[in-house]
Amino acid sequence: MQSLQEQSCGNGHSVDENDDYELEKQAINDIVAAFLYYKTYSSKALVYNRLKQIDSLPESHRKQIVQIGTIHKLKAIEKLIDSNYSLFLNIVYQNSIIFEDGILKNDIESSETVYDNIKEISEFFSLRRSKGLPPALPHHLDKLKSILNSFVRDWSDEGARERELTYTPVLQALEDIFSDCPVSNRSSLKVLVPGAGLGRLAFEIASRGFTCQGNEFSYFMLMSSNYILNHCKEKFEINIYPFIHQFSNVLNTEDQLRPVSIPDISPFQSFNNGMNNFSMAGGDFVQVYQDDNEIWDAVVTCFFIDTAKNPVHYLETIYKILKKGGVWINIGPLLWHFEDIPGESSVELTFQELMVLISNVGFSVDIKSIKMDIQSPYSENKKSMLKYIYNTPFFIARKKEVNMDLAAE
Amino acid sequence: MQSLQEQSCGNGHSVDENDDYELEKQAINDIVAAFLYYKTYSSKALVYNRLKQIDSLPESHRKQIVQIGTIHKLKAIEKLIDSNYSLFLNIVYQNSIIFEDGILKNDIESSETVYDNIKEISEFFSLRRSKGLPPALPHHLDKLKSILNSFVRDWSDEGARERELTYTPVLQALEDIFSDCPVSNRSSLKVLVPGAGLGRLAFEIASRGFTCQGNEFSYFMLMSSNYILNHCKEKFEINIYPFIHQFSNVLNTEDQLRPVSIPDISPFQSFNNGMNNFSMAGGDFVQVYQDDNEIWDAVVTCFFIDTAKNPVHYLETIYKILKKGGVWINIGPLLWHFEDIPGESSVELTFQELMVLISNVGFSVDIKSIKMDIQSPYSENKKSMLKYIYNTPFFIARKKEVNMDLAAE
Repeated sequence: MQSLQEQSCGNGHSVDENDDYELEKQAINDIVAAFLYYKTYSSKALVYNRLKQIDSLPESHRKQIVQIGTIHKLKAIEKLIDSNYSLFLNIVYQNSIIFEDGILKNDIESSETVYDNIKEISEFFSLRRSKGLPPALPHHLDKLKSILNSFVRDWSDEGARERELTYTPVLQALEDIFSDCPVSNRSSLKVLVPGAGLGRLAFEIASRGFTCQGNEFSYFMLMSSNYILNHCKEKFEINIYPFIHQFSNVLNTEDQLRPVSIPDISPFQSFNNGMNNFSMAGGDFVQVYQDDNEIWDAVVTCFFIDTAKNPVHYLETIYKILKKGGVWINIGPLLWHFEDIPGESSVELTFQELMVLISNVGFSVDIKSIKMDIQSPYSENKKSMLKYIYNTPFFIARKKEVNMDLAAE
Repeated sequence: MQSLQEQSCGNGHSVDENDDYELEKQAINDIVAAFLYYKTYSSKALVYNRLKQIDSLPESHRKQIVQIGTIHKLKAIEKLIDSNYSLFLNIVYQNSIIFEDGILKNDIESSETVYDNIKEISEFFSLRRSKGLPPALPHHLDKLKSILNSFVRDWSDEGARERELTYTPVLQALEDIFSDCPVSNRSSLKVLVPGAGLGRLAFEIASRGFTCQGNEFSYFMLMSSNYILNHCKEKFEINIYPFIHQFSNVLNTEDQLRPVSIPDISPFQSFNNGMNNFSMAGGDFVQVYQDDNEIWDAVVTCFFIDTAKNPVHYLETIYKILKKGGVWINIGPLLWHFEDIPGESSVELTFQELMVLISNVGFSVDIKSIKMDIQSPYSENKKSMLKYIYNTPFFIARKKEVNMDLAAE
């Protein structure tokens, strides 16, 4: 099996120096820790804490709660945590061989018994304890919930509607813009997708013949996309239970406990059949592509621009790496990721400010391409009583044929 | 001017003992501190931190940001913070006379100069400092944003649509259920609204002739509702700027900086014209009404049930205080307020579990009254690129004429 991912400097750190290398290793260790701690953490947070709370109720209230089946539900959730954990274990094992000095020695297939794995995991946490590290970083455990939701968005039938709303306009635009190029020659066109997440959009672009690279900063996403892209052999071979984590706005227990089958298509089989125009690259977008000069025909950003602390840097990078006349296709709202993170600050632009900036950086926005009426959820739980709907602008911008001298302004 | 609020044990604490009284006083002091610290805090969080971030950008990027008007926007926001602060100052001053041993000595009208107020506020914070207290509790400052949003929901034209979606079905139900009672006799019917927030729904019920009491736990809400109900003499006399706090998902600066005029109607004038069938009561719902036995004709809960840590307690209280045959009208989703609060735990029910529990507690749910198709925002910023839409069930339940023996189960 061919791995199609280029795993390069995943956290955007240089690996030139020993210190950085150690930091990088520690970052990966923390992330592996989160995956491996999922079961312990979720059992406590979702099940035991609630059982304790129910136990602390006045006796007559406790009886009422037992009578409506809540404890039965919590016990069922405990079992489903195991299923999610099994996916996370597989992600860790399938990725451990990628890392130099592998974090874990065995991969799951080469382990002779389940016991080997349990023993190894126990040693992993002993080592962290001996270094004074917590079993996992609390905010990392939230990332695992996001991973489950992202699997739904990118690789399940339930995600089809939001992919239709936000990926299809991008794919259509690419095909329209490059309609002069015969499909058989499309692999000569290079498309970059920064913020590729679990890789579905980039994979769809490659499936249409373009040479496409997804770029992703988060190791959580990179490890998970590697797993779904390169190691899932059959359609719908895995059931995950993303909604057990949500106790609010649930209509009924069946909704909360329902499985989602992934993947809805098997990229593994495409790669096995010789598809070789797709890759993933890890690391911070601005750093990974800092030496690229006018080599990409198109850059596609989908729910990505708002991950910037400094959006000028993103825009200038996109501008720099695009060939003259190259296109930037963007879709997504402006949920600036650093706005509410304590101790962080960022430059959060309005859509209007962003459009002026895009023009000032040297792009020509195709006014006719702008769509303001796309309403889409993101990683939606479609059975939830609460919906988040983004009014997400879409536009196409082109790098002008004549280079502007940015420094001269 | 007649104050129509009964301010009783606002945080649900008993005031029988000195210790509790001191705790209560400290709680009020903390809340007043948040109101008074709003300007300092918001100027830093919204304006200065962002200016600092822009200053730290590479020179060419800083120029780009200046060019698109972002700094101009931040300076404008700084001025609008003053307008919001002026409202919060008024709320504090108009409420300070309510508290025994008034937190602040003067009310704004009796102060001879603005300087008197500034000096007094400075003394207030000196006193907190001398006690080792922070200027304000960080999570309290978020409450002020909620207050601004609640003013939009309850007392502005912008809130009309969501009031129409969630208050109108309740008002209609009350009028239908009690249609046998002539309007002139409606004041004999007692309606309680727990979780009354800024009081609009309770006021609308009273405006239709019912004797209505709103109950609210939060001092932030109680102080703010007292202000809007009893001290705003004219329609639209105040402009607030609730949206300056949101830098994400903004289409343009005008949207972010736009004023909202409140109140859209003046309850003050109704009270002046002799309306005397409306009151507000402060404190925890379960505690405040623990001695009420079958005295209410109707209980109306709107976006309230999910504030419970123990929903059985809420349901049993509603059951106990309703007259035999009395009605409970409920609308709202199940966004269990304690689900994600660290260190807290609660019993979060699905809608299905809730309905079974309601029946087990002794209510008879009117199946025909159940509406599952109401889709409503809550405290919406209607210009935002992100919408939160609740699929919010509505139902009417009736306390059975024959009492059930709960203890016998």
